[in-house]
Amino acid sequence: MTIAITAFERSPDGGKGLARDTRVRWALEEVGLPYEVRLVSFRAMKEAAHLALNPFGQIPTYEEGDLTLFETGAIVLHIAECHPGLFPADASARARAITWMFAAVNTVEPPILELVTVKLVESDKPWKADRLPLVEDRVRARLSQLAARLGDGDWLDGVFSAGDLLMVSVLLRLRPSGLLDEFPNLAAYVARGEARPAYQRAFAAQLAINTAPLPAG
Amino acid sequence: MTIAITAFERSPDGGKGLARDTRVRWALEEVGLPYEVRLVSFRAMKEAAHLALNPFGQIPTYEEGDLTLFETGAIVLHIAECHPGLFPADASARARAITWMFAAVNTVEPPILELVTVKLVESDKPWKADRLPLVEDRVRARLSQLAARLGDGDWLDGVFSAGDLLMVSVLLRLRPSGLLDEFPNLAAYVARGEARPAYQRAFAAQLAINTAPLPAG
Repeated sequence: MTIAITAFERSPDGGKGLARDTRVRWALEEVGLPYEVRLVSFRAMKEAAHLALNPFGQIPTYEEGDLTLFETGAIVLHIAECHPGLFPADASARARAITWMFAAVNTVEPPILELVTVKLVESDKPWKADRLPLVEDRVRARLSQLAARLGDGDWLDGVFSAGDLLMVSVLLRLRPSGLLDEFPNLAAYVARGEARPAYQRAFAAQLAINTAPLPAG
Repeated sequence: MTIAITAFERSPDGGKGLARDTRVRWALEEVGLPYEVRLVSFRAMKEAAHLALNPFGQIPTYEEGDLTLFETGAIVLHIAECHPGLFPADASARARAITWMFAAVNTVEPPILELVTVKLVESDKPWKADRLPLVEDRVRARLSQLAARLGDGDWLDGVFSAGDLLMVSVLLRLRPSGLLDEFPNLAAYVARGEARPAYQRAFAAQLAINTAPLPAG
């Protein structure tokens, strides 16, 4: 069954791998599934054809036969459930991996997205300078808790799982801020994720698209 | 197997049902599982015993024999997978229900939490008045997209699922703001969720705790 995902025609990050299609590409590479990519422009993302796939007008989406999914977390979970490589076989360990998936997108990522809001969305606002340290401290609070739990482990719960895939992806967004480097074990954890061959292939695939000439028209 | 969850000794909302244990209580009531509740104070939530259950020092947590989970989304998903009532039997419909679970906590809730930040966490900041309408518009943008997808359906994907449970729970946080009432089909959707007997039991259980006298000491 052919798998098709959507990605930005041109990512706002210019190919740094922070757009969420990289997370889905990484998951597909970990389990060894081929996939097709359909590129969408910012304009097309808000049009009816794409909204039918994702009502919130975002990428990535995931199509596999009659099944259409959106939300990166749900797509990665679906891939992990249907193919070996991203979930442990033990049911309890699998439930804990899912806990880390939600922790990544629901507990660790929100303050990181607030940082994006301060720096990009509200970069022209008069409160930017005063608000930035408040938001940075919220990020630090989460990182500190995560670093304490990770300790000197390689991954969050023994072996690499879909939970690590999402957590590493979320933390990668922080690298430009310098905050990640305040927590050496988290920086090493992220580097361990990036070093995986499946991540390398996913990163290279999105970079190739973002550095290719745009189609005419 | 006994199920034990944690909840605030006294919720910051005074019993309006917005603390996240209500979501887990609701899921347990939908599938008809009995559970015990261990109450934790704000101080105890940041101490080692609780951090062993949830490294981010939050409630709820979930214990079932040797299994310990945190993250409301993961707990609800675990309950839904192990007991009939919250997931459709069809595998594709189940994957779509999980998509709505992630959409609730990862796409719809973040701007709603930003509103909480503006109104409560940063209520004493000089930028509050200028920032509030920006954040309200971000919430409206999401609600508008969600309202368009829901249309005149009762639930997001046919029958009630764990996706609706989380989406209704997330939207409930908006009621005091008045923003929910700008979208009549979403307001009706939330009311439909609240009218379910399982929600009513969950709400009553948390209210009883939050209106009981605090233990001495």
